[in-house]
Amino acid sequence: MPDQLSYFFNPRGVAVIGASSNPAKLSYGVVKNLKSHGYQGAIYPINPKGGDILGLKVYPTIADVPDPIDLAVIMVRAQLVPDALRECGKRGLKVAIVVTGGFREAGEEGASLESSLKGIAETYGMRIIGPNCVGVMDTHAPLDTTFITQMPKPGHMGFASHSGAIVGGAIDWAIEMGVGYSRILSLGNQVDVSISDGVNMLNDDPHTHVISLYAEGIPNGPRFVETAAAIYRDKPIVMVKAGRTAAGARAVASHTGALAGAGRAYEAACHRAGVLMVNSLQEQNDVAMALATQPLPQGRRVVLVTNAGGPAALASDQLDELGLTLADLSPETIARLGAVTPHDAQLSNPVDMLGGPQAEMYYDALKVALEDKGVDMAMALFVPQAITPVNDVARNVVKVAQETGKPVVCCLVGGMSIPEAIHILNENGVPFYQDPNRAARALAGLWQYAELQRRSDLTPTPVPGVDRERARRILRAAWKTRGEGFIDAEIAAQVAAAYGARVPFSGIAANVEEAVLLAQQAGYPVVAKLIAPGVVHKADVGGIALNLQDAEAVRAATERMIGGDADRSVMIQQMAPQGQEVILGAQRDPQFGPLLMFGMGGIYVEVFKDVAFRLAPLCETDARDMILETAAGKLLQGVRGQVPGDMEAVIDTLRRIGQLVADFPCIRELDINPLIVGPAGHGAWAVDVRMALSEQPE
Amino acid sequence: MPDQLSYFFNPRGVAVIGASSNPAKLSYGVVKNLKSHGYQGAIYPINPKGGDILGLKVYPTIADVPDPIDLAVIMVRAQLVPDALRECGKRGLKVAIVVTGGFREAGEEGASLESSLKGIAETYGMRIIGPNCVGVMDTHAPLDTTFITQMPKPGHMGFASHSGAIVGGAIDWAIEMGVGYSRILSLGNQVDVSISDGVNMLNDDPHTHVISLYAEGIPNGPRFVETAAAIYRDKPIVMVKAGRTAAGARAVASHTGALAGAGRAYEAACHRAGVLMVNSLQEQNDVAMALATQPLPQGRRVVLVTNAGGPAALASDQLDELGLTLADLSPETIARLGAVTPHDAQLSNPVDMLGGPQAEMYYDALKVALEDKGVDMAMALFVPQAITPVNDVARNVVKVAQETGKPVVCCLVGGMSIPEAIHILNENGVPFYQDPNRAARALAGLWQYAELQRRSDLTPTPVPGVDRERARRILRAAWKTRGEGFIDAEIAAQVAAAYGARVPFSGIAANVEEAVLLAQQAGYPVVAKLIAPGVVHKADVGGIALNLQDAEAVRAATERMIGGDADRSVMIQQMAPQGQEVILGAQRDPQFGPLLMFGMGGIYVEVFKDVAFRLAPLCETDARDMILETAAGKLLQGVRGQVPGDMEAVIDTLRRIGQLVADFPCIRELDINPLIVGPAGHGAWAVDVRMALSEQPE
Repeated sequence: MPDQLSYFFNPRGVAVIGASSNPAKLSYGVVKNLKSHGYQGAIYPINPKGGDILGLKVYPTIADVPDPIDLAVIMVRAQLVPDALRECGKRGLKVAIVVTGGFREAGEEGASLESSLKGIAETYGMRIIGPNCVGVMDTHAPLDTTFITQMPKPGHMGFASHSGAIVGGAIDWAIEMGVGYSRILSLGNQVDVSISDGVNMLNDDPHTHVISLYAEGIPNGPRFVETAAAIYRDKPIVMVKAGRTAAGARAVASHTGALAGAGRAYEAACHRAGVLMVNSLQEQNDVAMALATQPLPQGRRVVLVTNAGGPAALASDQLDELGLTLADLSPETIARLGAVTPHDAQLSNPVDMLGGPQAEMYYDALKVALEDKGVDMAMALFVPQAITPVNDVARNVVKVAQETGKPVVCCLVGGMSIPEAIHILNENGVPFYQDPNRAARALAGLWQYAELQRRSDLTPTPVPGVDRERARRILRAAWKTRGEGFIDAEIAAQVAAAYGARVPFSGIAANVEEAVLLAQQAGYPVVAKLIAPGVVHKADVGGIALNLQDAEAVRAATERMIGGDADRSVMIQQMAPQGQEVILGAQRDPQFGPLLMFGMGGIYVEVFKDVAFRLAPLCETDARDMILETAAGKLLQGVRGQVPGDMEAVIDTLRRIGQLVADFPCIRELDINPLIVGPAGHGAWAVDVRMALSEQPE
Repeated sequence: MPDQLSYFFNPRGVAVIGASSNPAKLSYGVVKNLKSHGYQGAIYPINPKGGDILGLKVYPTIADVPDPIDLAVIMVRAQLVPDALRECGKRGLKVAIVVTGGFREAGEEGASLESSLKGIAETYGMRIIGPNCVGVMDTHAPLDTTFITQMPKPGHMGFASHSGAIVGGAIDWAIEMGVGYSRILSLGNQVDVSISDGVNMLNDDPHTHVISLYAEGIPNGPRFVETAAAIYRDKPIVMVKAGRTAAGARAVASHTGALAGAGRAYEAACHRAGVLMVNSLQEQNDVAMALATQPLPQGRRVVLVTNAGGPAALASDQLDELGLTLADLSPETIARLGAVTPHDAQLSNPVDMLGGPQAEMYYDALKVALEDKGVDMAMALFVPQAITPVNDVARNVVKVAQETGKPVVCCLVGGMSIPEAIHILNENGVPFYQDPNRAARALAGLWQYAELQRRSDLTPTPVPGVDRERARRILRAAWKTRGEGFIDAEIAAQVAAAYGARVPFSGIAANVEEAVLLAQQAGYPVVAKLIAPGVVHKADVGGIALNLQDAEAVRAATERMIGGDADRSVMIQQMAPQGQEVILGAQRDPQFGPLLMFGMGGIYVEVFKDVAFRLAPLCETDARDMILETAAGKLLQGVRGQVPGDMEAVIDTLRRIGQLVADFPCIRELDINPLIVGPAGHGAWAVDVRMALSEQPE
């Protein structure tokens, strides 16, 4: 029995509920597209008025329609949708697309109407796409349930989009450019079928070679990450997300919060999920077109073949900035190129055939260059001029691309001369780019995915030696004492210690005598830290005294900090060994859950913004990569004769804290600032732990 | 009498030397374009064969041509160009365009041929564009000296390009898109007329509103900077440069060298020159189109008017990332918008008129929104669909743009539906963009230029209290002793001191006794630093001993460093006060001359790459901006309760060192690492000065 979602693309019959015989209506357009865009199953327009539409019999209700039928496209007005859906359920339909808008996006009434749809679907075991969407297309099936006037050519780009308008724009663009699609899904409000389901439906389709996603929100972040992570090695996922910079970022007072926010969480999620992030629709199409049509490169070495130096130089700059390199051509290749290019051609890389090469030279030169073992991929560049027919250039590039096993992309720098050449390229599997930098970005996308495909597994692994029960007891006690908000630093340190973080001995003193007693227990030297209501950044108010060597020093510091204030107390703490100070933080993203931060500690965190983010929990590889993404991590490795820090201890602490915040959703945020990292083998000390709770620990 | 360069665009007669009657020849194309693209003066084809071309009499030599004549387009083969140019000189021509290629770009022989052209031009007081170029166009004059088949529409974008192919590609694109140009110059090898002259010629043209430049190398960097700096407040300059990442960067051993390189120098030059840098031809056109057609915004607040939420959300992200903001619309504006948009429109900003607004609503909504005092500029976005005619949308956007005094750009997200709308927009002064992010970039370009136009003057000001003669004497002595390469640190410090940098007392000791004597003179505590052949990074080999408190400590350190090695000596230096360590460096860029670097000192410079670059010398404002660009500068201001450092002393030292390297081209590179910055008012100490010479001091 097929997966239920597959009925969206392979229904054995389609009903259009609310179909109109008026050609000005969108529902007429849906019937027309189903019929004229090649769907082979039965099409049943549904309308109480009866009659016929485009020669198809109109049925008064879905109940009247003969078998087999799997899919309904619902286009009646919002208030009538729940009943229509119920009828579909009774009739035994597997799937429905609710095109109608006016639900959640239209306000509270719409939202409550929308939530009823989910219940109806569950009752009847149906799956729903929408509401507020334009439906789906499969150019290979073929099936077109939308009212968009044309369907793109069959191709290998799959696209799932939150927004129907973006789908419309993409199709308008694709037809102009001769770009092919495999499946297109407009997901709308995602009351049931989500972007994660969209990923699965595109992954299940053998014609789809790349999954493009346009998202606004990600309703179930962890599920999306899990879904994408399960398939990204098989099929590339290229995602553009709107709202990366906007209100999603919570305003929290701590450093972590100020530096994190929705954009960082989204990036961390894409990293874990193996999703290629892009920032614009143009970049998405540029990269996806290459991934849809080209094999993956074995390395990062590019050859450029051109009739003009300028565009090739711009492409070289962009390749360099994106981490690709210009291939060094072998002497044999250069000699062979000499035989197939104009006598004055520049035979290094870029291979510049100057103003007027014959079109066939593009075939010959690319062929020879791609046969070089030192070349992993090629970009053909051409500026139209009177001598060389651009369409023939395109045909020669296509020919070589079809013969080689290496990626080839083509940049034509022009406008009025190239519309036909664009189609020759795109329709024959060579992506076209109008700008050299965009062609370079596309090649970089291929290499980026080739590397992603090979990276180590990032599935989180269990952290040994955590005492979850102890942490739970401490957290529960803290909740009872303080409720929501920050808990005592001393208590926070105990929670971290229960998960195996190394914290210095410490205790809270309400007065000078207690402070001296604690200092004796800890052993000199000690540190004194002010604990006072409303003081978050202790250093700013002289609330930290380091390296107190004896009772007298402890006495003086404590007196100064507490004064006569009964609300104040002092934490006396064993002084950690000297070492590099780093910061380690965690917070909770509304979409993706617990988010870890690592970076340079002390006053530097604010000016350098030298931080990396990951979803929690995380495996050792991911923790190590996270650390090494930062300058703090590079310093830990030892720079210019400095002693390397205990990298393994930092990795271990990161993983323990990651596990802690993953295990306890009640922890709203957590900062270890600083984590003092001793020399390799000497451990890392969580000297100051801050922790805030948002709910009762379970 | 007009400026001689003006004859390139307003000649009173044009000769085409080497004109052919064969329509397949490029020289025929030049005659044809002169004639058919509207040039009103006399056209004289020159060819010994005589006859006529396109009804124009062919003259055997330039000497035979009647007056008036100012410009020759020379298309004979390379070997014949010098003679042809000489004939032009004798005939009294003011200017010539050498289209012929095969000069410097073809090897040594061509290079020597090319250098002869310059001499001939000087002899006869002519100016030359080229060789190896495609000539010039002025769409308003009109004048077309190229063989490119079509001429763009008259417009306000001026373009000067190193590469002729890039010009060809741009024209091909412009015709397809209906984009207008004012003047286009293909500069080729720039044997005489350079990119700086190109800037002046575009600045002199009242039809040109924006100057676009495509450069590969900048032959005379300082002249380019001076030229651009003199005009950028009157006319924006948008530049793309190929070769930013490539071999231009010298490989030098010191930190400064490793971090600098051609790209940094280019950026510093553009900063000083007031040039907007872009990285691709696409970005250049996107920004230049807006600057050519739109007024400048008074602020950074943007309103988006759209028929689809998705593209507007992507535009919002991009605007945010580029430093613009979404305008907060006033309650009045929102009420008025309600009256002119569909009933279910979203009236916050973005103003989303949903799927099917009437085309006129674009006029009404934009008009209302632009009347809001809180709105500085507008982006209209539209995704084509069946209901609203896209051409009418374009016409309404044009109408509002022509009526408002604020900038308006338009994004149509589509392809097949929009070619006519693109022309309606571009030909009526509203720049069209296919991608929301590109439209956002264009608006950001407008704001970037508006800010640039208002910035303080960055012309370098004299530095008082420098003893140039003393510096010269010391440098000459050092050159005599050491020649090329690094000079003694002690000597280098004296040079810096002559320019007013504050250096600690120091001296060189060859043995323990001398070291102790020097330490007594300096006053304890002192620092001992190893001086040994081949040791560049002293800290790596234990060659620095800090805070030596007495003679015994000095003795021990000196013994350890020198050992029995007669080649080694030790510098004894007064210990600088504690403070923040920064690094200050200078090197010499082959294109732009002396380049200053400032950043975080110590081991951090390598991991953070927290550095800023400027051309030297520099004024106080520029020095301050430079410092504040870095995290080191932010730390100097005092972060989180830290005492602020002596910013004024750092500015002063930067300006002194900048003046030093500007005054003495013999200084190849210079590093002060660290410059120790005391608390505000306590000065900055150049503790370790390294300096290398490349030539004899003048």
